[in-house]
Amino acid sequence: MMERVVIVGTGLIGASVGLALREAGFIGTIVGVDASAGEAAEAKRIGAVDRTVAPGHRALKAYMTADAIVLAIPVMAIMHWIDQFAELLGPHTLVTDVGSTKLAICDLARTRFVGVGRVRFLPGHPMAGKESGGAAMADGKLFQGAMWLFTPLDEAETEPETEWRRWVERMGCRTMDLDAARHDRICAWVSHLPQMVSTAMAAMFEDEFAQEPGMAEEFRAIGGRALREMTRLGASPYSMWRDVAQTNTQPLAATLFALEQRLAHLRENLKTPGLREEFVKANRFRRER
Amino acid sequence: MMERVVIVGTGLIGASVGLALREAGFIGTIVGVDASAGEAAEAKRIGAVDRTVAPGHRALKAYMTADAIVLAIPVMAIMHWIDQFAELLGPHTLVTDVGSTKLAICDLARTRFVGVGRVRFLPGHPMAGKESGGAAMADGKLFQGAMWLFTPLDEAETEPETEWRRWVERMGCRTMDLDAARHDRICAWVSHLPQMVSTAMAAMFEDEFAQEPGMAEEFRAIGGRALREMTRLGASPYSMWRDVAQTNTQPLAATLFALEQRLAHLRENLKTPGLREEFVKANRFRRER
Repeated sequence: MMERVVIVGTGLIGASVGLALREAGFIGTIVGVDASAGEAAEAKRIGAVDRTVAPGHRALKAYMTADAIVLAIPVMAIMHWIDQFAELLGPHTLVTDVGSTKLAICDLARTRFVGVGRVRFLPGHPMAGKESGGAAMADGKLFQGAMWLFTPLDEAETEPETEWRRWVERMGCRTMDLDAARHDRICAWVSHLPQMVSTAMAAMFEDEFAQEPGMAEEFRAIGGRALREMTRLGASPYSMWRDVAQTNTQPLAATLFALEQRLAHLRENLKTPGLREEFVKANRFRRER
Repeated sequence: MMERVVIVGTGLIGASVGLALREAGFIGTIVGVDASAGEAAEAKRIGAVDRTVAPGHRALKAYMTADAIVLAIPVMAIMHWIDQFAELLGPHTLVTDVGSTKLAICDLARTRFVGVGRVRFLPGHPMAGKESGGAAMADGKLFQGAMWLFTPLDEAETEPETEWRRWVERMGCRTMDLDAARHDRICAWVSHLPQMVSTAMAAMFEDEFAQEPGMAEEFRAIGGRALREMTRLGASPYSMWRDVAQTNTQPLAATLFALEQRLAHLRENLKTPGLREEFVKANRFRRER
C-alpha cells in the first residue's frame, strides 16, 4: 500500500498531482521538495502537499522512507535524480516521473535501475499542462480526461507500479503504454511541434511589432482569437522546453523541417488548385477528430 | 434613418449581423438573400432575418428599396456585387461589406462608386468568426468585444455611414479606421498567417497519420489541447480563404516566408542558446498582451 509519496518539483504539474491524488481519495502523506522555497510554500498553502522539505541533506530521509517518488521536474533534472537514486534507494521504492521525452530517460534508467534488488522505475508522461507554470496555477482537475502515457522498462509489473497506475486512473486519466522511441516520435508531432510553432510565431510577432512606433498597439487591437490561440504556448518556459529540445532533437527537427516544406508548398500555391487540396485535407483532419 | 437592411449572404457572419442588429435594438426590416435556400431558411428560422428573397430577379427590388446592404460573402463575390450595384443603385443606398481583404475591394469600388450621385460604400471587416460557417452557427454576441475595422474610400462621411458605424458599436464592437493596404498587411500577419499555418499543420497531420494503420487513432488519443488549438482553423472553408489568398497574395506570401525562415532558425538552434532567445522573445510577446 502506497502511504508516503514524495513529489520532487512542486510546480504546476507536481502540485496538480498532489491535489489530484487528494481528490482521488489518497489519504497517505504527501511531501513536497522544490528548489524554490516559494513554490514549495505555495504548494503547501493550496493543500497539494502536507509538508515541504528543502532539497539536499534533509530531503534524503524523505526519499529513503518514501513508497513512491514522483519526479515532476524537467527531463535533465529527472535524469540527474535517476542517477542519484540508483545509489540511494532499494526495491521498496517506486520512482515515477512526468518527463516530456522518454527515450533518454529510459536509456539511462535501464543502465541504473534494472536488475534484482534495484529501485523500480515506471516512466510516465501526462499529456496535460498549461502555458504558465507554477504551483499557483495548480489544478486538481488538470488530469481529468487527459492521456497519461507510460513507457515501461520491461514487461514485469510489480504491485507498487500497478497501484500507481490505479491512482493515475482515479485522477481521471486514460492511460496507454508505448515504446519510448515511439513515444518521443509521436510527441514530437502532437506536442513539441505545436509548442515550437507557437514560440516561433510569438517571437516573430515580437520582432515585427517592434519595427514601427505604435504598430504593436495596432496589431494587438486588431488581432483576435486566431492570434491569441496560435501564440498561447509562446508563454511556455524555456527551462522546460530546453530539455525537450536537447533530448528529442532529431524527431523534433524532422517535424519542423516537414512543416517548413509544407508552408513553402502552400505559399507557392496561393493561387493554384494546390491550395484547395490543402484545405480539403485539413477539413478532413478536423472532421475525423 | 436606416429602416430596411438587406443582408447578402446569410451564413455565419451575415446571420450573426442580423441577430446582433436585433439585440442592439434595430426595429426595421431585415431581408436575407443567399444562394443556398437552406442557409436563408435557417437564418429566418433563428430570427436573423424577417424574410428571405431568392437571388436573381426578385432580389433586385429588395436591393433597390434598401437603406443599407450588407455584403456578407467572400471577397470575390463582394467584388461581383460592387460591379452590379454601380449600375443599379443610387446615393440613397449605403453598401457595406465584411470582406477579409480590403485593397482589391476598395480599388474596384473607387472606380465604380465614387462620385456625385453614386451609391455610398463603407468597406468594413469585423475581426470575428468561427472555424465552422453557416447560419446554424450564428450568434448575436459574436461581435461583442471584437474589433470592426473600416477602410473608408474618402474623408467625407454621410449620415448613413455614421449610422451604420453606430450600429456596429451598439453590437458591442470597438472600431478602427485604416488605410486599405495597411489593413491587408496587418491582417496577413494577425489573421491570414494563423489560418494558413493551421491549415498546413492539419493537412500535414492528415497525411502523416494515414501512413501506418492504427497511427491515426494513436495520435488522436495522445494529442491534447495544443494539437486541437493549433489545428482548429483547419476546419475553415476553402471557399472563403481562396478569395483571401487571391486578393492578398503578396503580403500573405511574405508572412509565410518569414515564418518558414523562423522555423528553420529555431530548428538549427535546438541545442544552442538561440533557442533561449526565441523563448525569451515569445514570453515577452505574451506578457505584453
